[in-house]
Amino acid sequence: MLKKLVLTGAAGRLGSRLRAPLSALCETLVSTDIVESIEGLASNETYVAADLADLAAMTQLLKDADMVVHFGAIGDEAPWEQIHSANIMGAYNVWEAAYQNGVRRVVYASSIHAVGMHPKSECIGTDAPHRPDTFYGLAKCFAEDLGSLYWDKRGIEAVCMRIYSCAEVANPRAVGSWLSYDDLIQLVTRAIDTPVTGFAVVYGISDNDRAPVDNSKAQFLGYRPKDNAEQFAEKIFAEHPPLDPQNPADMCHGGPFATVELGNSGVARLGLKD
Amino acid sequence: MLKKLVLTGAAGRLGSRLRAPLSALCETLVSTDIVESIEGLASNETYVAADLADLAAMTQLLKDADMVVHFGAIGDEAPWEQIHSANIMGAYNVWEAAYQNGVRRVVYASSIHAVGMHPKSECIGTDAPHRPDTFYGLAKCFAEDLGSLYWDKRGIEAVCMRIYSCAEVANPRAVGSWLSYDDLIQLVTRAIDTPVTGFAVVYGISDNDRAPVDNSKAQFLGYRPKDNAEQFAEKIFAEHPPLDPQNPADMCHGGPFATVELGNSGVARLGLKD
Amino acid sequence: MLKKLVLTGAAGRLGSRLRAPLSALCETLVSTDIVESIEGLASNETYVAADLADLAAMTQLLKDADMVVHFGAIGDEAPWEQIHSANIMGAYNVWEAAYQNGVRRVVYASSIHAVGMHPKSECIGTDAPHRPDTFYGLAKCFAEDLGSLYWDKRGIEAVCMRIYSCAEVANPRAVGSWLSYDDLIQLVTRAIDTPVTGFAVVYGISDNDRAPVDNSKAQFLGYRPKDNAEQFAEKIFAEHPPLDPQNPADMCHGGPFATVELGNSGVARLGLKD
Amino acid sequence: MLKKLVLTGAAGRLGSRLRAPLSALCETLVSTDIVESIEGLASNETYVAADLADLAAMTQLLKDADMVVHFGAIGDEAPWEQIHSANIMGAYNVWEAAYQNGVRRVVYASSIHAVGMHPKSECIGTDAPHRPDTFYGLAKCFAEDLGSLYWDKRGIEAVCMRIYSCAEVANPRAVGSWLSYDDLIQLVTRAIDTPVTGFAVVYGISDNDRAPVDNSKAQFLGYRPKDNAEQFAEKIFAEHPPLDPQNPADMCHGGPFATVELGNSGVARLGLKD
Amino acid sequence: MLKKLVLTGAAGRLGSRLRAPLSALCETLVSTDIVESIEGLASNETYVAADLADLAAMTQLLKDADMVVHFGAIGDEAPWEQIHSANIMGAYNVWEAAYQNGVRRVVYASSIHAVGMHPKSECIGTDAPHRPDTFYGLAKCFAEDLGSLYWDKRGIEAVCMRIYSCAEVANPRAVGSWLSYDDLIQLVTRAIDTPVTGFAVVYGISDNDRAPVDNSKAQFLGYRPKDNAEQFAEKIFAEHPPLDPQNPADMCHGGPFATVELGNSGVARLGLKD
Amino acid sequence: MLKKLVLTGAAGRLGSRLRAPLSALCETLVSTDIVESIEGLASNETYVAADLADLAAMTQLLKDADMVVHFGAIGDEAPWEQIHSANIMGAYNVWEAAYQNGVRRVVYASSIHAVGMHPKSECIGTDAPHRPDTFYGLAKCFAEDLGSLYWDKRGIEAVCMRIYSCAEVANPRAVGSWLSYDDLIQLVTRAIDTPVTGFAVVYGISDNDRAPVDNSKAQFLGYRPKDNAEQFAEKIFAEHPPLDPQNPADMCHGGPFATVELGNSGVARLGLKD
Repeated sequence: MLKKLVLTGAAGRLGSRLRAPLSALCETLVSTDIVESIEGLASNETYVAADLADLAAMTQLLKDADMVVHFGAIGDEAPWEQIHSANIMGAYNVWEAAYQNGVRRVVYASSIHAVGMHPKSECIGTDAPHRPDTFYGLAKCFAEDLGSLYWDKRGIEAVCMRIYSCAEVANPRAVGSWLSYDDLIQLVTRAIDTPVTGFAVVYGISDNDRAPVDNSKAQFLGYRPKDNAEQFAEKIFAEHPPLDPQNPADMCHGGPFATVELGNSGVARLGLKD
Repeated sequence: MLKKLVLTGAAGRLGSRLRAPLSALCETLVSTDIVESIEGLASNETYVAADLADLAAMTQLLKDADMVVHFGAIGDEAPWEQIHSANIMGAYNVWEAAYQNGVRRVVYASSIHAVGMHPKSECIGTDAPHRPDTFYGLAKCFAEDLGSLYWDKRGIEAVCMRIYSCAEVANPRAVGSWLSYDDLIQLVTRAIDTPVTGFAVVYGISDNDRAPVDNSKAQFLGYRPKDNAEQFAEKIFAEHPPLDPQNPADMCHGGPFATVELGNSGVARLGLKD
Repeated sequence: MLKKLVLTGAAGRLGSRLRAPLSALCETLVSTDIVESIEGLASNETYVAADLADLAAMTQLLKDADMVVHFGAIGDEAPWEQIHSANIMGAYNVWEAAYQNGVRRVVYASSIHAVGMHPKSECIGTDAPHRPDTFYGLAKCFAEDLGSLYWDKRGIEAVCMRIYSCAEVANPRAVGSWLSYDDLIQLVTRAIDTPVTGFAVVYGISDNDRAPVDNSKAQFLGYRPKDNAEQFAEKIFAEHPPLDPQNPADMCHGGPFATVELGNSGVARLGLKD
Repeated sequence: MLKKLVLTGAAGRLGSRLRAPLSALCETLVSTDIVESIEGLASNETYVAADLADLAAMTQLLKDADMVVHFGAIGDEAPWEQIHSANIMGAYNVWEAAYQNGVRRVVYASSIHAVGMHPKSECIGTDAPHRPDTFYGLAKCFAEDLGSLYWDKRGIEAVCMRIYSCAEVANPRAVGSWLSYDDLIQLVTRAIDTPVTGFAVVYGISDNDRAPVDNSKAQFLGYRPKDNAEQFAEKIFAEHPPLDPQNPADMCHGGPFATVELGNSGVARLGLKD
Repeated sequence: MLKKLVLTGAAGRLGSRLRAPLSALCETLVSTDIVESIEGLASNETYVAADLADLAAMTQLLKDADMVVHFGAIGDEAPWEQIHSANIMGAYNVWEAAYQNGVRRVVYASSIHAVGMHPKSECIGTDAPHRPDTFYGLAKCFAEDLGSLYWDKRGIEAVCMRIYSCAEVANPRAVGSWLSYDDLIQLVTRAIDTPVTGFAVVYGISDNDRAPVDNSKAQFLGYRPKDNAEQFAEKIFAEHPPLDPQNPADMCHGGPFATVELGNSGVARLGLKD
Repeated sequence: MLKKLVLTGAAGRLGSRLRAPLSALCETLVSTDIVESIEGLASNETYVAADLADLAAMTQLLKDADMVVHFGAIGDEAPWEQIHSANIMGAYNVWEAAYQNGVRRVVYASSIHAVGMHPKSECIGTDAPHRPDTFYGLAKCFAEDLGSLYWDKRGIEAVCMRIYSCAEVANPRAVGSWLSYDDLIQLVTRAIDTPVTGFAVVYGISDNDRAPVDNSKAQFLGYRPKDNAEQFAEKIFAEHPPLDPQNPADMCHGGPFATVELGNSGVARLGLKD
């Protein structure tokens, strides 16, 4: 059992669901986020309000920690300045603080949006090249490369979980991309309890019949999702109009984030990369 | 012929060698760097001192440009804060300014250090996954992913030239990794005159017998280097002690940048990733 | 729910089993074949006798259709002239009629025989190169390439189902290659209800323990077969003599179709391609 | 030296250039085409007018031949009916006649258009999957698969030369895609004199700096082109407006053949396959 | 049903568990090992004491056999001389005796140690290149290549089962690497009853959540393990200290066998191959 | 410059040609072979008669050596007992002696016959899986795996040169497979002077137009052959009858060594592996 575990983004939509299960994996759970306080602390849980952009605070927070579960970030596409500050600087601060404190492993909430511009008809493995669909995805690419650097040079392990759609199944895309909360918890648990991981990438997705990504290269992590969004397929498909295979928002892994923007010329530009 | 071409980093070691050849490819060359002025302007060359970290300045500079050749950055490993400001923010500003101005293509000075932790006995192609060896290399990874994003979403082309060792051949590593100045000029020229490029990656290396990287997947760019560092091999090898195959600094593409740091535990940590 | 669905080959061995399940997926099912009439029409099913070789008839038939499920063809090896007329011209007519009518997707009964000359000890994915074993298989290759063309140039989606052995399990090969009728129905249903498919290839095979093909690259289609021919293995193996690993008919995916013919020289010729 | 060699398409643009060099490789050259006669017969050359669509005529023509060099076909995109008759039926007739006569090898003029929808920024090897850009390209795919079948089942060797742009260098695309006539002759010569070939695919392209395809997997054929279209680059680029990276006609291997057609809906459809 | 089956290593830890199940697959089971006698013979089982290093004895033993299940060998790392005699010479003798007697197939107990130096974070398939971790593993590499030779040149089939950890789950590594005895029996049974195998490689591992190897390329053999070591994970992890990701013994497939030895220089040498 | 270099097989056909060039690369060259003496010693060359099968002698011989160039072996197919003794035991003794003496690198004369059963129409890279064609080739596979083991576990570098046909060009196969003596010398020189190699594999073949193997993954070694057997092609082809594409001896890399043997059944067995 771990002595001390730190959870960033503990007040967030996903982070808040992780507090209870993480508290069972360690002697002390330190939860942190930008808000002043959170409710319902476990008996072995402490909350520390801190700003990810503050390296000194992060370094203080990770003192004597065994691992850090890093979910703190802006969780949606946002202007570059915001992404840059919270998601890029925040990631740097977490890894650097981990290094300063001899923390063993960073368990990181990466995202499908790091590879969101790949067409969904192309089943991507965990070694798919980066192809971000937004600034949000770009920051995930950055943090994965940061984790690779700290592993190769400084020996900090990293498990980058490319979370797909961890929310209610509300549209046709999610029938393939859903990650249930239970499966999220299993995934994070495995990322923590696997004895050695080195630098690893794994998709955070449930056992959906239509899951368009392939975790076989990361199977040593032992993630075996239990839920399946196929139960919602018929209802969801009936409620939604047909999708458009020419529209990246419908055809690419990134979904709406993959929508191609109007360029200066006013002409829609569909990428042919690959 | 291009109407307007912008060169960043024009006062730098490599940038300054590009000014003359680039001025021959366009009606107007706008050279820029952080220094106040540079000497020896070509007849169609203008110099504008500007800070890469200043988006407004960049946007002004790229007005009506056809392409931008982006060499401006800190050219060595440096503390994160410096790399972050010049190399990461600078890259964002260049691409965003290009987009705001409808610039067609960014020709980017990426680096071998984006993939520097791969062992040299493993010949890497242009599709090798990122494996940075320094903050410097990490920023190159970031800019490549940024270029991918702006191509997929906004149709800005990018040629990312992973420059290897563009300097005098002074050590055994450079016998394999040398990029002569003439070949650099050819490479940049091809990155500009190739009619369409989409998002492309290419290694900047001369036709060395011992070149440890493979450009065959980028051959549509037509880069055919002419120089070969083998001419220096005998002398260089005679002057240097044997290398150590257990030392990443000798065995990895990144050379000295790949030196593994002491971790908190005081034990050297050699990465086993891959 | 689809407004209009067209099923070709509706009187055939497989097509006739699809009529009922397809009628449940659409407002109107138009079944067609070369025979004068078929029995047991569903309440929303119409039968139209038509010759696949007649483009005008096909064009008329597909009017206002959303999708066409194309099972009409000679279902066995046959002289070139027959394969050419029914399977090659027929496929062209179906895709061209689909294009003329703005039909969204062709769901196509391709076959393992498009890749039948690959050895079975080599597990092939959906991206295995064509390696037909007969004229029958060659026509399947043609139709797949036709589907690729109509998708790339004209935006018609295609799901090419490489059906393996959809029949009773009666020999050792079928213990690996069986496709149960229930799984066939699931496969066709998924090929229809998947929101976007682009151009996709998938093997039609049950969840046999010994299934020698790999659908993982097509998993976004959500095909999860339920049946398993292993239940028949013991009995079948006991009833049949040992197979011959030097005989392509026993060793290749195509089974008896892969039997090498005598050449002019009277000497058996075993291919070494690959 | 071969006893008898047959050349189809001998009156065509490329075929007519092959007559003299082929006549030097055999005791008897039989040239054939649809026209009544051709001029300038070599001393060991016979001309026989024949229709590729006539199997009996082809069978008669290939009597006692060692090899057939098959260049006869419609050499451009054409309506399906024409492509079907000359290029598909013609190919079948040539291979079947070769089989009936125990001909050893078919040297076939395939085309880049069999794979023309791949983006040019993706350097394709000889094992790139079929991705035709026209009916013309589709017929080339068919003939390649036909050659594969006759090799695997009947032991007839085949060398499929995917000819790129064998014509004057008149546009930016051709600076990469040119095949000089001299190199064409070398390629055909090697396809004939290589002792064993089995079933092989090779690109017909000169040693252009910007050649976007890779023959390394076919190097046992010994094709080493000598010409290089880079000599024309500067002039050609100066004379033509910039290309459009969003336009498949500019970005894909197939060039103008890859132009995406308007669909029924009146909306341009850019393919995202892959 | 097979007429005669030979089992080598019948007195060994694994071999002794195979006797009963194998006796059910054949009319006559001949068990052999170096010891004088074994107990509990099945009604159709004969025991013959023989030395694997004795070719004549092996040839006599395999007379009229249909298949041989070769488990006889030193089952642990040992000095080269011992490995050489029992594991290398023994393997040669078994295959040569099989050839002399027209035996159809060798079912061989290979080992994970043939590829033990691959990092576990890299999921290896059955086509992973050899990378032995010990003399023991090196002998397994040799026998696999021997099996390849006898198949290619002499038509003897071979199934090389790379057994992982067939023993009680007693350490963190085994939570991923366990092969239960029941699954071993299934695996050997499938290696025997699969109608044709040619030369095949398959990992012997249970259906562990954390199984770090991939059998998908060998799925035509139909091996579907039923057991899962995850049931032991919590207890095992609780009882053991954390592993060290920098230690090949913890990070590589071979486990303790992968421990790097001290070289002459007294400095630990971590391999960077790959 | 190396202090001491040891050459085994110094009296052999290839070894004898290496003595002079190797003597120029070191202060002391120790040549060894089984014969009593050799002639024409260089001024810094010593000859020691020794048996490769004698570990103590080898250990003595390699004392204080920097590198060993291991060419000593039976150079042709031979009965297993002979191959086993000279080629397998000999290789073990050389590597073990190297380890005992802290020798830095073994430069090893491997052979194309380690992969000789691959069809020649399949261009193999240096990572092609072992597929030996003879006991001779099998011993080369063993030594390569031995080199891998000593590198991974004990840090001894190895360059395995898979020599193709280092002899006069006397048959059609050699037009593709020739290695000139000059190129052999270059190859061995590069295997010695490359600063770090780790474990590397490279084909020993000249710059033949028809070279059927690909060294691109080993290009960091800097081997750039200068000779080209195409100069002999016309004469050789004219003198020899056509080859048979169905005959492994004509179609496979191993040439005559790949001839398939008659099995017990008296039926020719062509392997379908792959």
